[in-house]
Amino acid sequence: MMRQQTINKLFLFLCFWAIAFQGSAQKVKDAVTRVNPTFWWVGMKDQNLQLLVYGPNAGAYSYSVDYPGVSMVKEHKVENLNYAFLDLSIAPDTKPGSFTIRGKNGRKKLDYKYELKARTQETKAQGVDASDFIYLVLPDRFANADPKNDKFKDMADPNADRSNPFYRHGGDIQGIQNQLDYFQELGVTALWLNPVIENNQPLTDEGGAMRSAYHGYAFTDHYNVDRRLGGNEAYKKLIEAAHARGLKIVQDAVYNHVGINHWFIKDMPSKDWVHQWPSYTNTSHKFQAIMDPHAAQKDIYVMMNGWFVPHMPDLNHDNPFVAKFLIQHALWTVEYFGIDAWRIDTYMYNELEFINRCNQALLNEYPNIHIFGESWVNNVPSQAYFVRNNLNVPYKSNQPGTLDFVLWTAMNDALNQKFGWDEGVSKVHQVLAQDFVYEDPMKLVNFLDNHDMNRYFSVIGEDFDKYKIGLTWLLTTRGIPSLYYGTEILMKNFKDPSDAEVRKDFPGGFPGDKDNKFTAAGRTERENEAFDFVKKLANYRKNTPALHSGKLTQFVPQEGIYVYFRHDQTKTIMVATNSNEKETDLKTERYAERLQDFTKARNVLTDQIINSLNSIKIPAKTALVLELQK
Amino acid sequence: MMRQQTINKLFLFLCFWAIAFQGSAQKVKDAVTRVNPTFWWVGMKDQNLQLLVYGPNAGAYSYSVDYPGVSMVKEHKVENLNYAFLDLSIAPDTKPGSFTIRGKNGRKKLDYKYELKARTQETKAQGVDASDFIYLVLPDRFANADPKNDKFKDMADPNADRSNPFYRHGGDIQGIQNQLDYFQELGVTALWLNPVIENNQPLTDEGGAMRSAYHGYAFTDHYNVDRRLGGNEAYKKLIEAAHARGLKIVQDAVYNHVGINHWFIKDMPSKDWVHQWPSYTNTSHKFQAIMDPHAAQKDIYVMMNGWFVPHMPDLNHDNPFVAKFLIQHALWTVEYFGIDAWRIDTYMYNELEFINRCNQALLNEYPNIHIFGESWVNNVPSQAYFVRNNLNVPYKSNQPGTLDFVLWTAMNDALNQKFGWDEGVSKVHQVLAQDFVYEDPMKLVNFLDNHDMNRYFSVIGEDFDKYKIGLTWLLTTRGIPSLYYGTEILMKNFKDPSDAEVRKDFPGGFPGDKDNKFTAAGRTERENEAFDFVKKLANYRKNTPALHSGKLTQFVPQEGIYVYFRHDQTKTIMVATNSNEKETDLKTERYAERLQDFTKARNVLTDQIINSLNSIKIPAKTALVLELQK
Repeated sequence: MMRQQTINKLFLFLCFWAIAFQGSAQKVKDAVTRVNPTFWWVGMKDQNLQLLVYGPNAGAYSYSVDYPGVSMVKEHKVENLNYAFLDLSIAPDTKPGSFTIRGKNGRKKLDYKYELKARTQETKAQGVDASDFIYLVLPDRFANADPKNDKFKDMADPNADRSNPFYRHGGDIQGIQNQLDYFQELGVTALWLNPVIENNQPLTDEGGAMRSAYHGYAFTDHYNVDRRLGGNEAYKKLIEAAHARGLKIVQDAVYNHVGINHWFIKDMPSKDWVHQWPSYTNTSHKFQAIMDPHAAQKDIYVMMNGWFVPHMPDLNHDNPFVAKFLIQHALWTVEYFGIDAWRIDTYMYNELEFINRCNQALLNEYPNIHIFGESWVNNVPSQAYFVRNNLNVPYKSNQPGTLDFVLWTAMNDALNQKFGWDEGVSKVHQVLAQDFVYEDPMKLVNFLDNHDMNRYFSVIGEDFDKYKIGLTWLLTTRGIPSLYYGTEILMKNFKDPSDAEVRKDFPGGFPGDKDNKFTAAGRTERENEAFDFVKKLANYRKNTPALHSGKLTQFVPQEGIYVYFRHDQTKTIMVATNSNEKETDLKTERYAERLQDFTKARNVLTDQIINSLNSIKIPAKTALVLELQK
Repeated sequence: MMRQQTINKLFLFLCFWAIAFQGSAQKVKDAVTRVNPTFWWVGMKDQNLQLLVYGPNAGAYSYSVDYPGVSMVKEHKVENLNYAFLDLSIAPDTKPGSFTIRGKNGRKKLDYKYELKARTQETKAQGVDASDFIYLVLPDRFANADPKNDKFKDMADPNADRSNPFYRHGGDIQGIQNQLDYFQELGVTALWLNPVIENNQPLTDEGGAMRSAYHGYAFTDHYNVDRRLGGNEAYKKLIEAAHARGLKIVQDAVYNHVGINHWFIKDMPSKDWVHQWPSYTNTSHKFQAIMDPHAAQKDIYVMMNGWFVPHMPDLNHDNPFVAKFLIQHALWTVEYFGIDAWRIDTYMYNELEFINRCNQALLNEYPNIHIFGESWVNNVPSQAYFVRNNLNVPYKSNQPGTLDFVLWTAMNDALNQKFGWDEGVSKVHQVLAQDFVYEDPMKLVNFLDNHDMNRYFSVIGEDFDKYKIGLTWLLTTRGIPSLYYGTEILMKNFKDPSDAEVRKDFPGGFPGDKDNKFTAAGRTERENEAFDFVKKLANYRKNTPALHSGKLTQFVPQEGIYVYFRHDQTKTIMVATNSNEKETDLKTERYAERLQDFTKARNVLTDQIINSLNSIKIPAKTALVLELQK
């Protein structure tokens, strides 16, 4: 642990380099101890496969394979003699089975058994779209079904302690699977888990407190789900169970960086495997440089290649072996686990052409998969830059969707600001009015908060009226809604003093929890009101195609009233928000083009019938959802 | 006057309609009293000319012309019998000269002499670009050279009174011409006059005060410059004198509306000449609807077709005679007066295809002319929508430039906000970083304020340090700088209680003025400091191509320091702004890519030489302009 600290504070690259040759310096027996991808399939669209072959002196060998349909195209050597990269070609008619990768170095020989599986017909890569409702879970903090896997003595961080906000708490994948009824009751159709891949990281001193990698964003072995979450088996089982119920799974992918304890970081294939700096250099987080036609090269370089934190080395995507490793891992993950959609962490920190290659590889193999990255920006053109857009710019992103950070800001401002020409609900209107920059704004993923943000209920001052308005927008405007776990039971907090404040355990998910908020009986009256509100609206949405693919028509907000419609051939839904402190009697003449010959409406949330649409009473601080009727 | 008020308050269209047939109801002698354009030229690229022929019963006649090269293509009748519209074709080899337009109605005859001039070789349509520095003058408020033309008893508003902020003050075009030395001393290269076309409008009650149309935006006869400014002759003379000195002229064009006292409004060709409403309807000013893919049709209609104010009818550009009238007037104005650039008022209120036709007609005839409209928006994609852009959207604007309202907001915020991640000078950096949305951001026109805004010096709290920073950005960043009259002598004020507060007379421009701030002797020490600052920087800019066409390279602001470079093959200028309250010693290693092998610098504002560039001292609240040297 102290050693780790020292590394972080001194010149990292020197240390890496020293470590890199450690293997060859020790006299250990030549061997292939690891091959990635751990296995592969026959019948993939892309016939090429690059194997990373690792082990003491593995790079000193020449390799061959002898299996019908499989041919060795090229062998690559790198700086570190413990690595070889083998380009294989797998003919379309190759049969599934195992073969031996044989290494030869003079009279010395090595071999490693490798498997090509048959592709299964299991559900996978269904995509998520605007008919879905995504629920984001932080696995360590949601539910602990198996206390036996909370901690392992042989791991770099052997701790689990619910009393420490920065330590692992023991949540696991089985805990999530145990709540499938809960998700379905709520109206959720897709689960997004913060990363589940092994984070065998030591505790790290950040800002004076020792912290675990409970968040999951510091991978240490791409091909293993963390044991403390249940391993690959638990993840595969969850996905099968979810698919059996019609629930989809979103994988949280990280290409930009790994944990400093990643096995390939501890013994790097080459110095340029990660971005090296003379002394530790953080990314600037100043995304503007990426698209700025006036940007200084230095600013682009620091933004893209600076590190996120000292214990998460920044991968060098210009290294073709790094790029291939990550792309193949993405394909492997979808194919093996049956992932439906792909959320990409720190999207804009990835090398631009590389990330397009990643997306394209997934889309080639899985045309229906949805991909949406995290690009935390503050304006529409910058957000559009990282997604398929209507911009003629030298760099053309091929990402189908993105998390909509601009709408997130606007919704928060809309709820917290007094109405004005450009303030309050005007913000939401104005952001959506810029949708012309995107190729398809319906593919954007909306949210009110997430694991990196102040919790929604706190941001709006724990105002239950505002709470309902924001959720109404989330569940009825264009795009794909997502909800951060616990928002439905009014979990709250600000990030200050740390992220852990907004990543608290879901009450009832852990042994010994006093309350079980997965059940109505365990929730307070107010919590049930919140839960039931989300449940009602999400389930209505689930069964109302007009709220998925129906056109959005919005009217310029006036006097704090914001009205929009979602409509298709079958239904018209009117959403009318009164953001003022007093009731309004809304004259509807202005909305004639959408009210058409509708004469009545059903209040979707109360089931009350409104018998005249000439004017509509909207209580103070309320968003009505009205299904129009003739 | 009271009649006017009544019109405004009752149903305008009914009154217009009543007026429209007034002419034919009275028994006056048939005649052609007016033809627009008042004359034309041979040898224009577009051989077509549509004449608006007006007079009692003029529409009851059939017309012919007999002149070699000129043929009558089509005669159009409209609702109002006092109008005929004649489509002529003018062959390329037609000789200049006069001919008679002959009208025939049974045995009744009319005729009207019309002239086709030879085109002159006078300077015209030079365009303005980033090598220019535009100075915006409100003619009524700048300088009064001829008190005899201040007011005329036969005009709808016969008043002139400098003691009343809302009345005309008597400034005129000769007054502007008399200051050509002043402009040139300051470093100005182009004059933009608020509209000079006749505004023969009555006083109007606006918000309880009777106001004149001294601003010029309510045309009453397109083909005459207002007599009170000196008429067509004075304008032509000013432009000739300006051109003789290398100064350019920007015309302030208004297509969207006219004055309610316009002769063609008092007797409208047809009911659809203007946008009619059942009762007076103001535009919403909510531009978002125009580009919003989710916009309600109603919102678009009100934005585009609602009126600006009750006394400025909104022209209907979908009426082909209206469109042709306005386009021909634009061509006539450039050809006759020798205009160099075209500023378009209320740009985004004009019908979209119409405004592209206007632009194209000017660009076809005058390929070098620059066109830049007023689109008062609050975000880059919306601003880009109205100018040539990199957006694949159904509507493609062909406007070459635009006033940059987004950068204006950012510069003001940068000067008034404390530095932050997204605040203070970060705003300027972030707005410029979005330039990728424009086809050519160098063609945008920058400003710190204008006649519709709080004056710059007041906005920045009369802080002279900030004053210099903003002007430095204006004169050194990408694009075309423009200055509102009086900013160079620290004229100040807020719009509250009215626009007139920011349109005060230029001291020294009017008979009897105590001080003459056109001269150093008339200015206070502080005013001279301001004047000299602008003069120094504007004249440096004038002679420094790197500040015109040189590339802009900007660095992400850090700790309140914003650094950018303008550079070409010949020169590199470094602009380093310290927005903090204390001096900084800027380490320059970060800027190596632009500092290259430069070793010294000249401070352009002080002429001091800086002998080492390893670090640069920047005083508190200061923008340094350094010309780098080897």
